[in-house]
Amino acid sequence: MTFQAIAFDAYGTLFDVYSIGSLAEKLFPSKGEALATLWRNKQIEYTRLRTMCSMYKPFWEVTQDALIFSCNQLGLHLDFESQNALMGQYAKLQAFPENLDVLKLLQKMDLKLAILSNGNPPMLETAVNAAGMQGIFSHLLSVDSVKKYKTAPEAYQLGPDMFSLPAKKILFVSSNAWDVCGATWFGYTTFWVNRAGAPIEELGVKPDAEGKTLQDLLAYVKKSIADSNSSSH
Amino acid sequence: MTFQAIAFDAYGTLFDVYSIGSLAEKLFPSKGEALATLWRNKQIEYTRLRTMCSMYKPFWEVTQDALIFSCNQLGLHLDFESQNALMGQYAKLQAFPENLDVLKLLQKMDLKLAILSNGNPPMLETAVNAAGMQGIFSHLLSVDSVKKYKTAPEAYQLGPDMFSLPAKKILFVSSNAWDVCGATWFGYTTFWVNRAGAPIEELGVKPDAEGKTLQDLLAYVKKSIADSNSSSH
Repeated sequence: MTFQAIAFDAYGTLFDVYSIGSLAEKLFPSKGEALATLWRNKQIEYTRLRTMCSMYKPFWEVTQDALIFSCNQLGLHLDFESQNALMGQYAKLQAFPENLDVLKLLQKMDLKLAILSNGNPPMLETAVNAAGMQGIFSHLLSVDSVKKYKTAPEAYQLGPDMFSLPAKKILFVSSNAWDVCGATWFGYTTFWVNRAGAPIEELGVKPDAEGKTLQDLLAYVKKSIADSNSSSH
Repeated sequence: MTFQAIAFDAYGTLFDVYSIGSLAEKLFPSKGEALATLWRNKQIEYTRLRTMCSMYKPFWEVTQDALIFSCNQLGLHLDFESQNALMGQYAKLQAFPENLDVLKLLQKMDLKLAILSNGNPPMLETAVNAAGMQGIFSHLLSVDSVKKYKTAPEAYQLGPDMFSLPAKKILFVSSNAWDVCGATWFGYTTFWVNRAGAPIEELGVKPDAEGKTLQDLLAYVKKSIADSNSSSH
């Protein structure tokens, strides 16, 4: 078998960052989708700018900053109540429907499972609990301990350090194309959960495998184990 | 006077990166604006990912990669001829209309002027020549010499190194809000050419001054010199 552990990205991969769209639409009619998209893009942009400039700030605060900017940009009046409601929903994002079942099946396959996320620890714990994923992951690894966001190597290094495995022996799973590219550059074996059917980024690097949902990940993992067993006989 | 030299960002500030929109629209009817916007966003995203992962590649190539991805994403068929036409136009982007006159006036004011850009040297030279800006700048500083894109400190350090001045004594001018924030964090005196009237980024940092065009920059520089002269008497 080529990998002995799986590290999951959280936001976008386990938890649906666009699931706040319907609340956003209720608060800002006809602008919900635009807000959800810009909010996400700004959030990611701020993690990169802060990392490149060594100006780290926890993901929860970055997420709030990005919300405020996005409303300013779109000309939406974000009062205290709306902000609390949106941030409150962000804290307990919906998990994609197939995730919990797949994670439970992977757990039974003697694989170590972890989250490796930009989210800061209280944020991650809240999201995991809200999704009923307590007890699934051996570790919730947060970039908060290195004060650099993905795709910085210091962030990806958390996986090998925690599992005491080379990156190649860890399967890194993300829905975010940029995250999968960064992890592949770093040295992980990678699986891209390409939910939107997006084209691959033109970065000269490709994930080792790709699928549409975590069900496809499950099939890939089963096949990898079977291939590895048959080749070791 | 608080600053003795001016360093200009190039793409977006001197040269209008969206001026390729009309050619894009001709090649891809009703998709020109979407392509111009996505192309620019991807180009910047790729500079950041490559910098964070130490996977530098010159800006010309990154720009081409971003064009290819953007067409894939938008479902546009980019043939060899269209690609050459769009890249050819990118090489000779239109300058904003007021720029040349303002630059000539600044040059007469005994200020050293430079470009500090993500663009690689041949790209910068071509753009400067196409805009009739030969002889305006004492230096065309390219991040290519440090293999890290803005907002990495190594990129911004090119200014102080070249001018032998502390960053605070150099006025850094950019239309890109993220660039102005990065330069302010780094230590420059900064001027944001906020052509679109955008809200400030929520990064906890503000440019020293702001205007709508390079005409406003000229007024700011004149006032700074006048203030400095009167305070030194």
